[in-house]
This record gives sequence, structure tokens and C-alpha cells, in this order.
Amino acid sequence: RIDPARLWDSLMEMAKIGPGIAGGNNRQTLTDADAEGRALFARWCEAAGLTLGVDEMGTMFAARPGTDPGALPVYVGSHLDTQPTGGKYDGVLGVLGALEVVRTMNDLGIQTRHPVVVTNWTNEEGARFAPAMLASGVFAGVHSLDYAYGRRDPEGKSFGEELVRIGWKGDEPVGARKMHAYYELHIEQGPILEAEGRDIGVVTHCQGLWWLEFTLTGRAAHTGSTPMGLRVNAGLAMARILEMVQRVAMDAQPGAVGGVGQVQFSPNSRNVLPGSVVFTVDIRSPDQAKLDAMRADIEAGAATICKALGVGMEVEAVGHFDPVTFAPELVEAVRGAAERLGYSHMDLISGAGHDACWAARVAPATMVMCPCVGGLSHNEAEEISQDWAAKATDVLLHAVLETADV
Amino acid sequence: RIDPARLWDSLMEMAKIGPGIAGGNNRQTLTDADAEGRALFARWCEAAGLTLGVDEMGTMFAARPGTDPGALPVYVGSHLDTQPTGGKYDGVLGVLGALEVVRTMNDLGIQTRHPVVVTNWTNEEGARFAPAMLASGVFAGVHSLDYAYGRRDPEGKSFGEELVRIGWKGDEPVGARKMHAYYELHIEQGPILEAEGRDIGVVTHCQGLWWLEFTLTGRAAHTGSTPMGLRVNAGLAMARILEMVQRVAMDAQPGAVGGVGQVQFSPNSRNVLPGSVVFTVDIRSPDQAKLDAMRADIEAGAATICKALGVGMEVEAVGHFDPVTFAPELVEAVRGAAERLGYSHMDLISGAGHDACWAARVAPATMVMCPCVGGLSHNEAEEISQDWAAKATDVLLHAVLETADV
Ligand SMILES: NC(=O)NCCC(=O)O
Ligand SMILES: NC(=O)NCCC(=O)O
Repeated sequence: RIDPARLWDSLMEMAKIGPGIAGGNNRQTLTDADAEGRALFARWCEAAGLTLGVDEMGTMFAARPGTDPGALPVYVGSHLDTQPTGGKYDGVLGVLGALEVVRTMNDLGIQTRHPVVVTNWTNEEGARFAPAMLASGVFAGVHSLDYAYGRRDPEGKSFGEELVRIGWKGDEPVGARKMHAYYELHIEQGPILEAEGRDIGVVTHCQGLWWLEFTLTGRAAHTGSTPMGLRVNAGLAMARILEMVQRVAMDAQPGAVGGVGQVQFSPNSRNVLPGSVVFTVDIRSPDQAKLDAMRADIEAGAATICKALGVGMEVEAVGHFDPVTFAPELVEAVRGAAERLGYSHMDLISGAGHDACWAARVAPATMVMCPCVGGLSHNEAEEISQDWAAKATDVLLHAVLETADV
Repeated sequence: RIDPARLWDSLMEMAKIGPGIAGGNNRQTLTDADAEGRALFARWCEAAGLTLGVDEMGTMFAARPGTDPGALPVYVGSHLDTQPTGGKYDGVLGVLGALEVVRTMNDLGIQTRHPVVVTNWTNEEGARFAPAMLASGVFAGVHSLDYAYGRRDPEGKSFGEELVRIGWKGDEPVGARKMHAYYELHIEQGPILEAEGRDIGVVTHCQGLWWLEFTLTGRAAHTGSTPMGLRVNAGLAMARILEMVQRVAMDAQPGAVGGVGQVQFSPNSRNVLPGSVVFTVDIRSPDQAKLDAMRADIEAGAATICKALGVGMEVEAVGHFDPVTFAPELVEAVRGAAERLGYSHMDLISGAGHDACWAARVAPATMVMCPCVGGLSHNEAEEISQDWAAKATDVLLHAVLETADV
């Protein structure tokens, strides 16, 4: 079993970097705080005797050798970047849980045939640079390196420039590493495990996603002196589209969600009807056909709404992944580990996207999940218990040892 | 008659300061560009032999003496500040038109019994610091000086600090000046004059306004892993309130408008349901009872919407003025001037708020309006013809001369 106190201490140490405003974290990707978090993680890896490699996307790979020089490594990781108002565990538990796995192997002098590589993927959150899971996406060949480098944050800074600026652009070609398997531990970010009273989520699938960025063009005009009948009101069109997205998502129940987290009015002045409104619809389902049907319904519905109001509309898919089925043999390794350890468990479909979803394209992959209080995540109040963290990391340890071949 | 070319040249000179991104202006109040615009205006006033006074709100008063030392001045002006994506004429025509009136009086050696004071009010737009018409509101005793100094822009800077920073905090006590009358020339900012083919709007009334700032509190949560039934969705509540505001405004037709120009999601990240949404509803009507009924309907409707979604709601009135009836004798002076000059005219109710609305509380006041292309304003594409500007300034000249007693 892992050392629960050591794991928790590391989580609390990391949480001091990039503090939020309400007890959580703002350690967005490629900020100074991200660089500081990476440096701390690198020091810990070095202390654990690991050898650090960094690829051209800034992803960090800290390797513990195996006994068979020809055996491919088992990768174990997640991400250290956070949302602007993020929690202390989303991603971080997966990286520091993986570190705790190798620390425990070191303590017990455990040798494995396959190397074990603790991994910190760059820009999982996608909050600063869309899309999410950017570095793992390049690793899996889904995006080109140029595409990734050209992504821009709301201030117009590019991913490529910022990666160089914080000093974490490595020289390994992205995706050159071959994986025997990939494991990722993560908090559930949803309410199911807690509600069902289970300690361990055995993750069999992940929902697919579309991020549809709408740009609505109205006519900027005075809110007081422009008669109702002469308005080209992009804000009203946005409101109607939000309501329609809600209806499409509700009609697709069960097994789908849809919502909007980002809206930008221009010029965003109290007495100016917006000249443009840009917002992103986030829809998800584990069912590919349902997901694509929702997209089609939303785009058609939005076009009808905009046409009726004379508002111009453009849509760009700024994020996407297909639903994922995780590798049955790894899923079985997680389930078996939970059984052997005597921890209550259940099968889960991941509601959120994870680097494991892209890793699954190039290697057998799966995830382990632990509950989080109230299902709350992407919120500074995100919370887990030390016991949940410890049990899930125990399961991760056992599954990794099985796959890495003790 | 005034000198159309000189007026137009001055408008084009001023438009070079604080250029926008699409041919208009971004010369928001108390910015460096505002300071530059003020300095140019002050130089022009000096060249015209006027004596400049500045009050503690930064409002500029450039006086041409009258022949009777005991006679109160006739004030004529508007504002030089603009929206973030504003036009070249909104406000500016009123200040430079007033300057053209005294330049013409100088050319012709006209003497009046009452002094004439060209006026540039600070922060008419309210885009950077709500509410609009802030300095004229303090002048009229509607707001306290402390209230005005404490208003903050979106970056948290206060009006008081910024006024000092740009070097335009004067020493005259605000409102100490007494007015014989107040005239304001302004573009219509609406479509009526152009549609009716009239050159001159004789402004008899101004609509009243409420700016209702809503703060909706939801629960920040992951867009992917939070089931539809567990969301506390402040963005959806905002969408429903926007639709309801539209319905209330449509039901109040004719003689009312309502809309929303400013919306802010927090944390405004694509995969986070908003923890809070702040937005401002702008409703107007020339009919006080209708205006207040709209406010009551909107607040009640919003409360019902938020309750159904479990979303918290607070409302603050961040801007208000009652409907205004302008002084009949000045309105008659404007109408008579248009008649004498042979310019087509019609009575108008101002859709926008103006400094004249607050001035009307402390002196007889009215306005002259000229058409603008397509009724478009609060848009960089705002446009007027040189002929419209000249005719309206002629009318202003004649009305001012009558009231100032040639
Ligand atoms: N786990 C997580 O929050 N990932 C961000 C990508 C997503 O929105 O699902
Ligand atoms: N004229 C003008 O645009 N004033 C700003 C205040 C308002 O919104 O009416």
C-alpha cells in the first residue's frame, strides 16, 4: 500500500503554487505558476531517482527503469495545470498519485520488467488555450505541432511563445515514445461514486465531446434610441440558442449533457446592443450517434434562430473527441486490484475528457477514479478525503505493478 | 449662418484623437486620449477668446462674456468622451457645434446680454464608469461628489483617481454655476428624422431609464461530468431573463425599449458552468408609469426564473433618470429658428439620455437634433452629412442668440 500521508503532503505542497481566490488554485498552463509547479515536480522526481525527459510540447516524462531493456514502459500520469478557478485535485492527484506509486516501489525495492514513467501532460484543461488535452492530442497524432503552437489565449499570446517563455519547451519529438500501457488516476468530477457509496470507479468508457464556438454578428446600436423593430440583436439570439441547447440536452437524456461556460459580448457596454457575441457550446455523450445528432440539431436550431433575427452566424468546432472504450485487460486489472484490496467499486463512464482518451489511441489505456465531495469540480471548493485518495492510489499501484510485470 | 467647413474640420481633427478600430473612436472618459481631446478643445477655446473654468468633476466651461454683468450665462454643450467602439459625432457635435456658435458670433461681432458658455461634461457615456451623465448628474445635485469619485471601471480604477491622473480635476465646486438656460445639440442616434426626411429634431421630451444590474449566482461545475439535473445554471437563468426582457419590452410597445448590452460570465471558461453571471438590463420609456411597471415586471419575472433554477439573484439599479419634459419656451425658440431658416423639422422624444436631462433639473433646457445615417450610433460606423451638421448648428446659433438676448 502507498503512504497516504506522503501523498497528501505532496498534494498540499503543490496547492501552494498558484493559489486561487477561494481555497483552490489558478495554475493555468504555461503561466509562471505552471513553471513553478513543474520545477517542484521535477525536484521530487529527481529525489525519487527518476530520469526526466521533456518533449516539444513541454510534457514531462519521469522514468523508473525496468529489468528488461527491451520492454516498453508503462506510463502513469495526468496534468498539473488547473482551471482559472480550479481545485487542488483535478489532474494533480493523477500526477502525484503516479509519483507516490514509484515512491512506494522504491520503498519496497520492487522491480518490474517494464519501466514505469510518471507523466505530466501540458495544457489538459484547455481553459487558456482551446482545445483541452492539447499535448496528449499532439502525442496521439490528432493535432499537428504547428496547430498546437498557434493556439492563442484571450490576450492573443500563442501557445508556442508561452511554452518557450516559461522555459519548458523540451527537445524530444512529440509522440516518439511508445507505450506498453497508460494509466490515469483522476477524481470523478461528478456525483456518482459518492452517491453510490463506492470508493473506486473502474472507468470503462469516456464520453465524446464537441466544443462549438458560435460567432454571432448583430448590429452595434444604442440601447435607448434604437426601436425594437430595427434591432439586429445578437445577444437575444445567444439567449435563444442557450435555451435551445438546454432543450436538446434534456431531450437527449439519459446519457448526454450540454451547456455553455463562456460568453463574450462586444463591445460589452451597458448602452450598446452587442455588435457580436462569441460563445462556446459544450455537448457530450458516450454515444457517438447521439453526440453527432445533438450537434446537428444545435447547429440547425441556431441557424433558424439567427435567421429569424437577421443575425449572422458562424460555427467553428474548437474541440472534439470521439467516445472512448478503454482497454478491457487494463480495466480488468483495475477491477481486480480493487477486489483484492477489498475496496468497494463500480464501473463508470468518465463525464470529463482526459489525456487517457488520447493515449487510448496509441496504447492500451484506462483510468481509476475516486469520489469528490458533491461531485463538484472546476470549482475552487473541489474536495476529496485523504482516505479516497489513498485507496484509489493503492488500486493504481496494484494495477500498474500487474501491467509492468513485477 | 455658421461656417460648415470649419465645423467639419474641427470634427475631423478631434476624431484623430483616440482612434477606434473601424473608423470611429475609442476616447473613453478619463483616458489619456480623453486628456488629449480636452487639451485640443481648450486650445480652440483660447483661440476663440473664451475663458476656461474647470470644476471638481473635470467639466470644462469656456465663457464668452455678455454685455450685462448681472446676467446669468446661457450654457451650450455636450460631451467629448466616447463609447469603446463609438462614433465621431455622438457628443462631439454638441461641443464643437457650441464652439462653432461662438466662433460665428466672434466673426460677426455679435454681442449678447447674457454670456455664452461652451461646455464639455465629463463621463456622459457611462461606458467606463456607470452611470452615464455622471458629471451633469453631480452638477444637478442628483449624485454626491463622493459617489461619483468612488465609481470604478472594470479594472477597479476609481473615477476620482483617474480624474486626478489625467490632470483635469479643477477647483470649481460642482454645481456652483447658475444657468439662465442650457442648450444641447446632438445627433439623433435613432432612425426617425432620416426616415421622415426632416433636417431638424425639435426635442420636447427625453425617455426615462433604469439600468438594472443583475448578479446571478450559480454553482461553478464541470460541463462534462455534472449531470443535467444537478446543475445550478446561472447562464441558463441569464438566457431566460434576456428573453423575458425582450417580451416585456415588446408588450410595452409603442413607447418603450429594453435590452442587454453587457454580460460577464465567471470564470468564463468553456468547460465550467458559470459560478456567476453579471449583466445589465437597460429599459426606457418616456412614460414614467410604464417605465416603473416594466422594471417591476422584469424583477418579478427574473426572480421566478431564478427560483425555478435554484439560482441566487441580486439586482442593483446602477443608473436611472426620470422622463424629462424640456422647457417650452426654449423648445419654441428651436422650432422658431428652424422655421425662420426654412429647415424641415419635427418634434422628437430623445431615445438616449443626455446631459440636458440633468441640466433640465436646474435650468430651462432643451436640445436640437440632426439625423444620422440608418439611425446608427454607439457604433464606429456612425455617420452624418456635413449638411445635416451645418443646418442643426445654424438652428442652435439662432436659438442661443434669442435666449442670450442679442
Ligand atoms: N478532466 C477535465 O476537467 N478535463 C478538461 C477537459 C474537459 O472539459 O473534459
Ligand atoms: N447619448 C448617449 O448615448 N448617452 C449615453 C447615455 C445613454 O445610454 O442614453
